[in-house]
Amino acid sequence: MEKNGPRIDFSQPAVDALANAIRSFEGVSRKKPIADIAAIFESVSDMYGGCVVDFGDDAAAIDIGGGDVILFAADGIWGRLVEKSPWWAGFTSVLANVNDIVAMGGKPLALVDVVSSSKTEDFTEIFKGMAEGVKKFGVPVVGGHTHPEGATTLSVAIIGIAKKDELIRSDTAVPGDVVIFAVDMDGRTGPNSPYSFESLSFKEPAAIRKMYEAPQQLAKQKLVTAGKDISNPGVVGTLGMLVETSKVGATVDLEKIPLPDMDIVFDRWILMHPGTGFVFTAASENAGECIRILEAGGIKAAIVGEITKKRTLDIFAGENRATVFDFDKEGITGICKK
Amino acid sequence: MEKNGPRIDFSQPAVDALANAIRSFEGVSRKKPIADIAAIFESVSDMYGGCVVDFGDDAAAIDIGGGDVILFAADGIWGRLVEKSPWWAGFTSVLANVNDIVAMGGKPLALVDVVSSSKTEDFTEIFKGMAEGVKKFGVPVVGGHTHPEGATTLSVAIIGIAKKDELIRSDTAVPGDVVIFAVDMDGRTGPNSPYSFESLSFKEPAAIRKMYEAPQQLAKQKLVTAGKDISNPGVVGTLGMLVETSKVGATVDLEKIPLPDMDIVFDRWILMHPGTGFVFTAASENAGECIRILEAGGIKAAIVGEITKKRTLDIFAGENRATVFDFDKEGITGICKK
Repeated sequence: MEKNGPRIDFSQPAVDALANAIRSFEGVSRKKPIADIAAIFESVSDMYGGCVVDFGDDAAAIDIGGGDVILFAADGIWGRLVEKSPWWAGFTSVLANVNDIVAMGGKPLALVDVVSSSKTEDFTEIFKGMAEGVKKFGVPVVGGHTHPEGATTLSVAIIGIAKKDELIRSDTAVPGDVVIFAVDMDGRTGPNSPYSFESLSFKEPAAIRKMYEAPQQLAKQKLVTAGKDISNPGVVGTLGMLVETSKVGATVDLEKIPLPDMDIVFDRWILMHPGTGFVFTAASENAGECIRILEAGGIKAAIVGEITKKRTLDIFAGENRATVFDFDKEGITGICKK
Repeated sequence: MEKNGPRIDFSQPAVDALANAIRSFEGVSRKKPIADIAAIFESVSDMYGGCVVDFGDDAAAIDIGGGDVILFAADGIWGRLVEKSPWWAGFTSVLANVNDIVAMGGKPLALVDVVSSSKTEDFTEIFKGMAEGVKKFGVPVVGGHTHPEGATTLSVAIIGIAKKDELIRSDTAVPGDVVIFAVDMDGRTGPNSPYSFESLSFKEPAAIRKMYEAPQQLAKQKLVTAGKDISNPGVVGTLGMLVETSKVGATVDLEKIPLPDMDIVFDRWILMHPGTGFVFTAASENAGECIRILEAGGIKAAIVGEITKKRTLDIFAGENRATVFDFDKEGITGICKK
């Protein structure tokens, strides 16, 4: 396994600072309200069968019989990003939703949107961005709702389909599994945030669709035990959410985290939201085949750590070590504290 | 057919004024941007099979094979309503989405939401309202996305399931069909708008679910040719959208429109958004059975008019007559002008 090289400071104070930066990163801390929402709905959710997974995963999976599940997810784009760059928000909304389905091993089927704006030009730019996403990913927008007033906002929902017994869930990681980080490295810092790594707007639809078939391959061959789309919390923060819902812990070797071929400071890289990026867990004997399939699709992948019984997420480099999350004390989403 | 009685002014100037009021009603005019959106996505939508209906219907229908379609819709709640009454907005968001599925003869499966607010109490009220809707309709919220910042906004998407050959679409009305208005009359003016007719918050879940099975019965028995959920445009405005997408016209006899047992001025009633209300079209020999099924479910139903080849929507009372929409000149959504 190649090392990141000596130019990165992995001293104990640096590792402590990293753990702190990840824990207090806005992309992580804004996941907090999820638990409160889940609690409000908990009291009424017992009346239903049919839902395989709901809160805490990238998408909910609804059992429709015959071995199939419908995957269903929604994503909103931060208001300030929509106002600043409506085209980009439209494009990103398609991407974020497609990633939610793909991360679960599913095939995306269709999108709907709710858009509000008092500015006609914002509508046009948002929809043009979405149309570009539709072209790239091959997933149609089939309807939605518009409000021709108020602040510019954008919410998008997606459905996908998967085989029930092939679903990649995020609550099923098992102690002893290896942790795989998988990121499309052919990208650059995004236009609107130093924490976004944009790797799709300049790629051909055929290359993108090939890349997005890799997780479906992992699902079909049942090579992974769990998986999650890397979103705003960054690679380690996303792993944190995965181990929280799986009721396990993890260790991450900082020196094994894959880096892009460009000068992004490690402290920032570890917080970035990649255009295409996943965290997977797998039995160690399957890890090699997982990495082969992901890299054949154009996604750089590496084993970076291990799932543990101990309910903390620790990062380390050599002898230097720090705890990012201690789930016995405090969760990220708080959904699965018990 | 019972008449509305002599207390309503159906003179020619009054009928002209009604036509004008419906056409210029905000609930109708804000449907305009739909055409522009559909046009932006049109250029990229040719690449997909599998979508049975998309823009212009209550929900999109995605063919998943085996004779089933997944219905998929999104609704946003007007920003000003969310700010004014977050509980009510949450409750209404469930209702509006369930209606989109039910109007197509489908069975609702699950909801997801995107909510933003800088106020914790707004979040709580919205989710409590949604939880009440979940209890009433028996459709779970399975996930979503929250933004703990910015203005208070709420978008909700729903999925449902239906048999492909039993789908009630809104683009399939045929000249010669009768027009049926079906509305739950056991209600009152809603708390937030003089144009909403609230009929669900005080009803028991069992009664509501029985009511919502009636449209599924119509679908199963293939008794209707088209149908649409009555929303903000009101009964005549919604019929207008249905005939526009069906590329037909219609006449409506004002004296046959069912009225609630309370003192709501006719001019306002005709613009109101009922909690539960549908426009259906049917071959005249099936109309009686449709009405029987709807009324057994607790929904008042009546034949109010006819589908015409001529592409206008005309209202009349006796000899007095006015054109509300002339689709050769201008559409409501503009989607199907050609």
